[in-house]
Amino acid sequence: MSKQYNVAIVGTGAVGTTLIEILEERNFPVNNLKLLATKRSAGKTFTFCGENIVVEETTPKSFNNVDIVLFAGGRASKLFGREAVKRGAVVIDNSSAFRLDPEVPLIVPEVNPEDIKWHRGIIANPNCSTIQMVVALKPLYDAAGIKRIVISTYQAVSGAGKEAMDELEEQTRAILEGKEITPKVFPYQIAFNVIPHIDVFLEKNYTKEEMKMVNETKKMFHDENIRITATTVRIPVFRSHAEAINIETDKKITDEEARALLSSAPGVVVVDDPANLKYPMPVDASNSDQVFVGRIREDISHPRGLWLWVVADQLRKGAATNAVQIAELLIKN
Amino acid sequence: MSKQYNVAIVGTGAVGTTLIEILEERNFPVNNLKLLATKRSAGKTFTFCGENIVVEETTPKSFNNVDIVLFAGGRASKLFGREAVKRGAVVIDNSSAFRLDPEVPLIVPEVNPEDIKWHRGIIANPNCSTIQMVVALKPLYDAAGIKRIVISTYQAVSGAGKEAMDELEEQTRAILEGKEITPKVFPYQIAFNVIPHIDVFLEKNYTKEEMKMVNETKKMFHDENIRITATTVRIPVFRSHAEAINIETDKKITDEEARALLSSAPGVVVVDDPANLKYPMPVDASNSDQVFVGRIREDISHPRGLWLWVVADQLRKGAATNAVQIAELLIKN
Repeated sequence: MSKQYNVAIVGTGAVGTTLIEILEERNFPVNNLKLLATKRSAGKTFTFCGENIVVEETTPKSFNNVDIVLFAGGRASKLFGREAVKRGAVVIDNSSAFRLDPEVPLIVPEVNPEDIKWHRGIIANPNCSTIQMVVALKPLYDAAGIKRIVISTYQAVSGAGKEAMDELEEQTRAILEGKEITPKVFPYQIAFNVIPHIDVFLEKNYTKEEMKMVNETKKMFHDENIRITATTVRIPVFRSHAEAINIETDKKITDEEARALLSSAPGVVVVDDPANLKYPMPVDASNSDQVFVGRIREDISHPRGLWLWVVADQLRKGAATNAVQIAELLIKN
Repeated sequence: MSKQYNVAIVGTGAVGTTLIEILEERNFPVNNLKLLATKRSAGKTFTFCGENIVVEETTPKSFNNVDIVLFAGGRASKLFGREAVKRGAVVIDNSSAFRLDPEVPLIVPEVNPEDIKWHRGIIANPNCSTIQMVVALKPLYDAAGIKRIVISTYQAVSGAGKEAMDELEEQTRAILEGKEITPKVFPYQIAFNVIPHIDVFLEKNYTKEEMKMVNETKKMFHDENIRITATTVRIPVFRSHAEAINIETDKKITDEEARALLSSAPGVVVVDDPANLKYPMPVDASNSDQVFVGRIREDISHPRGLWLWVVADQLRKGAATNAVQIAELLIKN
């Protein structure tokens, strides 16, 4: 019998619950699954492979005898990540805490699986908006090189957690009933609106979300020379992000060539048949683990420009699925 | 007493009804207002300046003794536009029928008012997504030149008419109630979704909406050398479009300089204070005639790159207000 692992998930919000689903779906070789969260969530019950598991409050001792810890996000990994490593676990962290740490590999298995070799106990899972983009760009980067990337995102509320998804639903209902609304999770109304602001503002008036796309992409491609810029935007969609991505390649690549490369790329599904109105959309991508790419077009404004429209489920490939894929890579190595 | 004009509005949908409102709001010197539409809408009543006006079916004779005809959109101007001119009227057309005709000026009063001088009876009103963009770009174009424009749009359903606005509302309600939906106006579900496709697909897999932004901008700036590309996207918002616009100027321009130029530009309101979470959003722009610009940033991926986030009410500045401003320009000349 092949080896089985003691796994802990820290966090039981939107990403945490998706992690439970995906471990089960992908038949990850789990010996024992521990669910950890803050005191507030302790005592809740979740089902995993037909078994009820009660959520425990996270303490340093929680990580004794755990092989792999999946941190869903938030502050938990800052508080307990190093502690878990000290007690012998390997940490896969979905928060931004360690992503740019030069001692921590940042991994998308379709892009830079080789980086798993140099981990020292912590492996970082990239930001959702970065993951789906790099999966789509990797085959083009390998074939033609990429000089510059200009991105505009259309991001689902799931990126801000379960409360944000509830807020979109409740706010939409209230507005349709003509009631007053009071935003809680988002700074402004999100129902029937667009908020051009995700995460905090940093220097040069870029948001942290925008800089994540810039810095994480460079780190995973091991290429500080790619010029990247982004505008990241929250829209009233529940759980899949879309991205309009304009790239400038080193070598000219036609739309046909790009389509062929993407069609055989791991983790990518090309949905690109304008004559039959086929293109990727959030409602179709939700609950899937793939990255959907369409609207592949040569840019009429640049001789080596190319447009892509990339959609993926933020909770799955953008978070939980990628984390579990990292765990799979880890146990294979 | 200054001159008053006999005005006709053709079309009584979302843009047509907004035209009635705006003629009244701006005290356009109307002697007589005639409302024209297809047989289906004839007999409906609208109020203008306290007076009830009954909609008549459009026939060639409808244009006798009319000074200015405002076509709201659709096919009416193709059917009746030249006829109205023959009978002595000046036509201001919100459809795309005449926009690229070299004998027809295409006008945004803040951008190229001088083009009104060479009209021969028909003046075209640009596409909604183009209008708000050129208002924001004009001061930058004049100060620093523009080499390239890369646009991603976030377009409200109002651009597809009143039925589309009703569809968003009804579909949203149905989805929240867990009911099945059947899209009618849009090819797919628009509630809680994103459709990367507006108007028909043309060659090179660009949509007509995308090519409108390219061709209309070049025509109004009288500059065939600007390189322009766009991805136009429909989102579940009722009536204001947003646009993430990345430009490359000829001369370097700082974000401070751009902010200063835009702050004193006609028709523009700068809403750009990230520290206090101030940026333009559709809910704030709706029911306004201004073009709101924010997220003004130097592009970290290009030495002469600049980002703008531009929001305006599609039915007002994007359609009806601009048409009435053209009429104001016409009677002033």
